[in-house]
Order: sequence, then C-alpha cells, then structure tokens
Amino acid sequence: MDIIIANNKPNAKTFLQKIQGKTPTFIATIATTETGKIPGLSAAGANPDFTDFTPPADAELLLLGKCRSIQGVPITPDGIPTPALITASALRLADIPVLIVNGGVKVKPQIPYIDVNGSPGRDIRTGDSVDNVKEVIERAKIVGEHLAKTSNYLVIGESIPGGTTTALGVLLALNINAHGKVSSTLPDNPHKLKADVVAAGLNAAAQKFGNFRGDPIKAISAVGDPMMAAVAGLVIGGSRQAPVMMAGGTQMTAVLAVINALEPNALCNVAIGTTRWVINDKSSDICGIVNQFCQVPIIAANLDFESSKYPGLKIYETGLVKEGVGAGGATIAAIAKTDGGVNKQILLKEIEHNYASLMQIK
Amino acid sequence: MDIIIANNKPNAKTFLQKIQGKTPTFIATIATTETGKIPGLSAAGANPDFTDFTPPADAELLLLGKCRSIQGVPITPDGIPTPALITASALRLADIPVLIVNGGVKVKPQIPYIDVNGSPGRDIRTGDSVDNVKEVIERAKIVGEHLAKTSNYLVIGESIPGGTTTALGVLLALNINAHGKVSSTLPDNPHKLKADVVAAGLNAAAQKFGNFRGDPIKAISAVGDPMMAAVAGLVIGGSRQAPVMMAGGTQMTAVLAVINALEPNALCNVAIGTTRWVINDKSSDICGIVNQFCQVPIIAANLDFESSKYPGLKIYETGLVKEGVGAGGATIAAIAKTDGGVNKQILLKEIEHNYASLMQIK
Repeated sequence: MDIIIANNKPNAKTFLQKIQGKTPTFIATIATTETGKIPGLSAAGANPDFTDFTPPADAELLLLGKCRSIQGVPITPDGIPTPALITASALRLADIPVLIVNGGVKVKPQIPYIDVNGSPGRDIRTGDSVDNVKEVIERAKIVGEHLAKTSNYLVIGESIPGGTTTALGVLLALNINAHGKVSSTLPDNPHKLKADVVAAGLNAAAQKFGNFRGDPIKAISAVGDPMMAAVAGLVIGGSRQAPVMMAGGTQMTAVLAVINALEPNALCNVAIGTTRWVINDKSSDICGIVNQFCQVPIIAANLDFESSKYPGLKIYETGLVKEGVGAGGATIAAIAKTDGGVNKQILLKEIEHNYASLMQIK
Repeated sequence: MDIIIANNKPNAKTFLQKIQGKTPTFIATIATTETGKIPGLSAAGANPDFTDFTPPADAELLLLGKCRSIQGVPITPDGIPTPALITASALRLADIPVLIVNGGVKVKPQIPYIDVNGSPGRDIRTGDSVDNVKEVIERAKIVGEHLAKTSNYLVIGESIPGGTTTALGVLLALNINAHGKVSSTLPDNPHKLKADVVAAGLNAAAQKFGNFRGDPIKAISAVGDPMMAAVAGLVIGGSRQAPVMMAGGTQMTAVLAVINALEPNALCNVAIGTTRWVINDKSSDICGIVNQFCQVPIIAANLDFESSKYPGLKIYETGLVKEGVGAGGATIAAIAKTDGGVNKQILLKEIEHNYASLMQIK
C-alpha cells in the first residue's frame, strides 16, 4: 500500500479516483518569516539565519536538480537533507511539471518564479506579521485559476521555515483548537515555545487589529506568514477549474482554515496530501485539527526510509523533518500519474541516487 | 476563410492540424526599451513617455478585463485602442488561460507575473541595450518547458513599444536583409528613422562587442530588446514539449532569427501567427524576412473591422497598429480551439462590446 488514507475515507477515495493516471502541475510556494529565526523553533536550515536561504534553495533544487543560492542542499542543524530531495525525485521520475510561486522571500531564488507581490514576513510576536495579504490572495487566485485550466489538477506545496508556529497562530486566531497539535521538523516538538510565541503575537495583535476571529485576512496579517496568503489564493482560484491537492503537513491546516472562512465551497475540490511521518506523528495531530471544521480528506504517501543505506535518509524514520516542499503530495502525484509505476522502492532508489550525488557521497 | 496561410503551405497546414480543437496556454511577454521613446518611432502609447505604461496595462487587460496602471486602455496618439483588446476578447470567448512573463519592464504590472530576471532595455543607439541576456534565456527556457508539459501547445505574444526597430537591429546584426521590411504601428512606416537608429546602434556596439554576427546573445545585448531574450527562451523550452505559436508580426522574425542561431531544431515545432493587416502590409514584408533563413510557416487571422460601427476600430483597416500583444495568434487559437465556433463576426461583436465598455462609449 503506497498511499494511506488518514481520515474521511469516502472523500479520500473520490479524490484519489479523480487524480488516477492524471498529470498535475506542481506549484512550490516559497516564503520566509522572521519567526523562523526564533531560536529553537525550526530546523529548516543549518542555523537560524540560514533559514533565509532554505526556500530559494529548495525551489532551485526542484527546477534545476541542484541549488544555486547555496552549496549542496539545505540541511537541518544535524545535517539531515531537505525534503525537497524527495519532492524533486518524485517529480522527476513521473515527469511532472513544476512552477515556483514567490509568496515573499528575503533571498530571491536564481530561477524563474511567479510573483504575486508578496513580501517576507515579520516575527509574529509583533502581532503585525504580513503585509498586503488581501492583494496577494487576489493575485494568487488568478494564477491558480489560469494554471488549473490546462492542468488535470494542481499540487501545491510550501517551503517556509517556522511555518508550523505561524500555523498555530492562525489556527488559534480563527478559534480552532490547535494547542499541541501542530507538527515540527525537530525531534522534540517545542509546543511550549510555539504557544508562548503565538500568545505574544495574539496579544500584540489584539491592540492593532482588535477582534480578528473569523477574519482570516486579519489573522494572517497579525500572526500568519506570507506562504498562507499565496497558497490560499492558489487553492481558491485553482479549485474553480480542477481538483487541488494541498501538499504539506499541519501548516496546510491553517491555510485550510483560511479558505474555509473565505470561500468554503472551494474545499469540495480539495485534499491534503502528506507523508506517513506526519499522520503517524505522536507529537502532532493533523486529523484532529482538520476534522474540527471541514470534511477535507487527508491522504499520505507511505514513504519508508528504514531500508536506506544512508544514515542521513534513514533518520527520517525517527521523526525528524517529516514533511516539507510538498514531499508527500509530490510522491502521491507521482504514484497516481504512473498508475503505481513509481512506487516507494523505486522512489527510494532515486532519492538515494540524488542524495549521494548532491552531497558528494561516494 | 478565417485563417490565411501566408507562406510554406504544407508546414502551415501541418501546424494548423496540430492545434485544431486544442487548448493552448497563452503567454504575453511584456518589456520596455528606451528605444521606444525616440520621437517618431512608435505609436504604442499616447506619447513617448507613456510607452512605459503600455505593456503593464496590456497585461492587466488580458488578466482582469481592465487596466489598473492607467485609466481606460493604452491608445495611440490618435486615440486608437491597443490590440490587447482583440487578444483579450479572443481569449475570453474561447476560455484560453493566460500567463504574463515579465521580460523587463520599467513599470510593474499590478497582476501576477512570471519573473525571469529581465530588466528594461536601454536605447539601442548606445549599442549596449540589454543586460543579462543569456541568463534570461535560460530561465525562460525552464518556464517554457514546464508550461508546455501540461498545455496542448503554447501561444506566445509580446507587448514592447519600439519593438520593430530593435527587431531591425537584431536582424541586421545577424546578417539578415531586413531593410524596409519591418512593420510599424504608424500609418507611415518610418523606415529611414529606424535604419538611422539601428546604424547608430550597430556602430556603437561594434566597439563594445566586436563582431556579433552569428552570435545572437551579443546581438540582443547590443541592439535588441528584453522581450527577445524572454520569448526566445520560452520558445526553445516550450518547443521541446509541444508546438509553439509565436504570436506577432515582424518583431517575431527577429526572435526567430535568434532561435535559428541558438537551437535551429526548435523551429520544427514552431509557427508564426499574426494578422491579415501584417501579411497584407505594403510597407513591410514578414515573409521576405522569414524565407531568407527558415521554413517556419506564417499564418494569419483574417480579422476584418471594415464593418465595425466604431471609427476607433474601423481605422485598423487603414493600416494603423496592425498587430500586437499576440492579437493575431490569440484569434487563431480561439478559432482553432472552438473548431470555428469563434469566427471573425462573433469576435468583432465581442471586441466592440469590450471597446465600448472600456472606453465608456454609450
């Protein structure tokens, strides 16, 4: 079984039928937030300042098969490689086209990208984290709608260090109980630190924005991140024309909550695609978040690195990293497009090959 | 007969068969060059300084059905509306998706666009007109290839005031006899002025670039414009995956010459799509340029505004404007997609409707 259904089985099966044998367009949405630099919050970069380079380098890896903004590939402080390695391998094996949307990054990627007028996010403890949210959503809607007209469906992933903390912020701001439920790249999920950061942000934001519960634009502006605005727009616009798979872990639940508040009908054509590592994670609860407010199915790629000959990959099985850059969704899309021709064994071989080549392991 | 074949009949028929009933992605490539502000050279704006706003406003018209960067729509000094009105009407009638590529503009459009790291062009009399040509071509290749993977074919148009003069520059630099052969938005084609401007540019460039004949990157860098680099890359990348229609008049012949020098195999999957006004123009000779160096077919939309009730549209029949923003190619694509359901009468009604609404004519 290479694809696992995590909740809402009938909806999940319907979605899987829609994408079987079909070719999507994969869209990686990159963004940065100063929130990602709070010590102890994110492992999406060798050190906090390095997180500015992770999203552009991830995007370069998807389009070029190698990074330009950095040497090698993005790694965690422990040297674990970016999940973009999984995404790039899956998309390449299944020959799935890729486009990059710049939701707002500090360091521009050295590749072509779609600009939706987003800018990098501030630390959410300011309570004033993202500019221009409404306009970014509107521009991204246009992109999503036009791309979905020629694609069988869209798969939309993200790369934004610190994104689970901003996800917690927006979920709480929208009155969804997400305490202790968001995931982490770190082996020990820093729930307490995330909750403190979000509490500081919500407190600061209350003065600027007043009551933002039920107002997702204000919620993102106050305690969210730039990825959310771009992805929400892409999904809303895209779902008018074709099915959309939101490729990510608990970060995508915050975007789902935003869409649910802005245009709930869009969710009829949407699924979340993630990894087994996320749905089996004991320190987070993606289904427990989503099931509070919608029927969107969650499906997961049964990725398994247990048998890998490389420690840097095998360690994914201990719960590090888990997901990112749409790794799970890209894998599901590759399996679906090739009617199982790409399976988890073949994919692991390709990932190992690319890993060894990029990390110059002999 | 709504589509006219202007040369290479067998190749043209093959190309038309390939696109019959199919849905393309339409890509409008926008750029600006200071060359467009030389008095007497271009009518793509109410006055020379206004030409900076024409490409972004054209792009907005295609995506939003109205402009944001200016009031109304771009017009010539005589008040004739932009051909983007034709393009927008054709694409809307046939429900063809649109994306904008920013080849290098001074004024950014207020819509989403694909960034390929291009910058606005300088006056070609400097002999040093465009920066970063090679990198822009490489980035645009990636975009073209990925978009063509999910599209039946691509239609690639342009909006750049002054573009026929830079076309003359690059054609001459590449040793193609184009004197007196490039088209104009103006009723009296200023061939002498264009030739003088190009001569000054080639002269200045010879000092900086040495011999650039046969080197299309240098030719664009010296006397070309930023649109050329972006479109050349899009066509080369796109044609690897699907047929490509280059939508434009004699400006596209310069891009064709660039591609012919860089990657001639790409041309097997390419056609030029333009308007009857271009192929019937007595003051230019698009076939006479193309036939010098390749077998690419030229097809034309048999647009006919003779019966229009609006003088501002009827005047297109006197030879003003003629083409731009892929008007001819978009019309051909709309006819082909709908198997003739969109024809020239239906299209004229739609154009008149949009024209009256945008110009607030009662």
